[in-house]
Amino acid sequence: VRTAAIVVAAGAGERFGSRKQFAELAGRSTAAWSVEAARGICDVIVLVVPPDAVDVAHGADVVVAGGATRAASVRAGLAALDADVDVVVVHDAARPLATPALFQAVVDAIGVDGVVGAIPAIDLVDTIKRVDDDRVVVETLERSGLVAVQTPQAFVADVLRRAHEGDPEATDDAALVEAAGGRVVVVQGEPDNRKVTTRDDLEVARALLAHR
Amino acid sequence: VRTAAIVVAAGAGERFGSRKQFAELAGRSTAAWSVEAARGICDVIVLVVPPDAVDVAHGADVVVAGGATRAASVRAGLAALDADVDVVVVHDAARPLATPALFQAVVDAIGVDGVVGAIPAIDLVDTIKRVDDDRVVVETLERSGLVAVQTPQAFVADVLRRAHEGDPEATDDAALVEAAGGRVVVVQGEPDNRKVTTRDDLEVARALLAHR
Repeated sequence: VRTAAIVVAAGAGERFGSRKQFAELAGRSTAAWSVEAARGICDVIVLVVPPDAVDVAHGADVVVAGGATRAASVRAGLAALDADVDVVVVHDAARPLATPALFQAVVDAIGVDGVVGAIPAIDLVDTIKRVDDDRVVVETLERSGLVAVQTPQAFVADVLRRAHEGDPEATDDAALVEAAGGRVVVVQGEPDNRKVTTRDDLEVARALLAHR
Repeated sequence: VRTAAIVVAAGAGERFGSRKQFAELAGRSTAAWSVEAARGICDVIVLVVPPDAVDVAHGADVVVAGGATRAASVRAGLAALDADVDVVVVHDAARPLATPALFQAVVDAIGVDGVVGAIPAIDLVDTIKRVDDDRVVVETLERSGLVAVQTPQAFVADVLRRAHEGDPEATDDAALVEAAGGRVVVVQGEPDNRKVTTRDDLEVARALLAHR
């Protein structure tokens, strides 16, 4: 099985205030940690960055310019892959604490019992509600079976390519594959594998890396 | 406005392996931190503990024995309150990092624009999906308006008492009030105010408290 990783690091970092994916974290960039986790599991690693940042590889094999949205950036990564790739693993550079074991787990789940997508997720501890624009609660969700999804997400390459045909928008590749009827399974996610969204998150990631 | 806190510390700690609410955290019990956060905001603090643990107050004014479920324990707390209490704040002892400011925020929101319940919550960063018993994804939830709910949760005392009439089961008091048609609003939660469920959570809580 030939496996490729697409590490998506093309965001503008609006919430963070700068490009969080290139923020320094224990001696290397956040993106470099995310690339490193795929190393040894994936045969080729494509890093997708903003168009003005293609000059630094952050440890990846191939660097390509991303698009205006996350989905467009994933497609830029797909376009850079050889046709003989069997499994594609999409990973957010903003999750620098994912481990190689997690990459391995999602790759291993592909192909078993007709599974075309495998994604990490953790059970929710908190009650989830939906609020309206005035922050009034309109719904409390039935909690059974609810999970919070992470990356890396592995897919049969052809299935992911087809799911992206017609340039759909989505913040979640698995949702595109599900919408096309593909069987997607959840593997156990990692508590530390949180998305770095704020500077506080970066501090927590720094502390967790120091602890390893 | 006369305000009472009910701090619920009656769980068996099945996931944790022991009673996490009494685990030591920077010099005092987890429950004591949760009681301390309510001090200065609430006029009286009732701590609800397992029946064999009523001999230690953990800083609370009143200690009562809890019931078999979380909802039964909240009712045990309600039964211990004077009739002249206007607002009840229910808090999980397993959230030792809630601040007095958060207690103040939920209490302040009560009574404004007909609000009978005010609960802290934070916006979700991760995509939420629902899986079946085989961990196959069956639904990706529309993310807009989804929030993860915390405690302390404040309610008009009479409204909470009525919501608990007939001894309903629920892990979330707000859901009972919503089901009765009460207007519940969300106030901004605190990122550090996570529920201590595992020993790792306790380590994180310890690190965050040391950081304060």
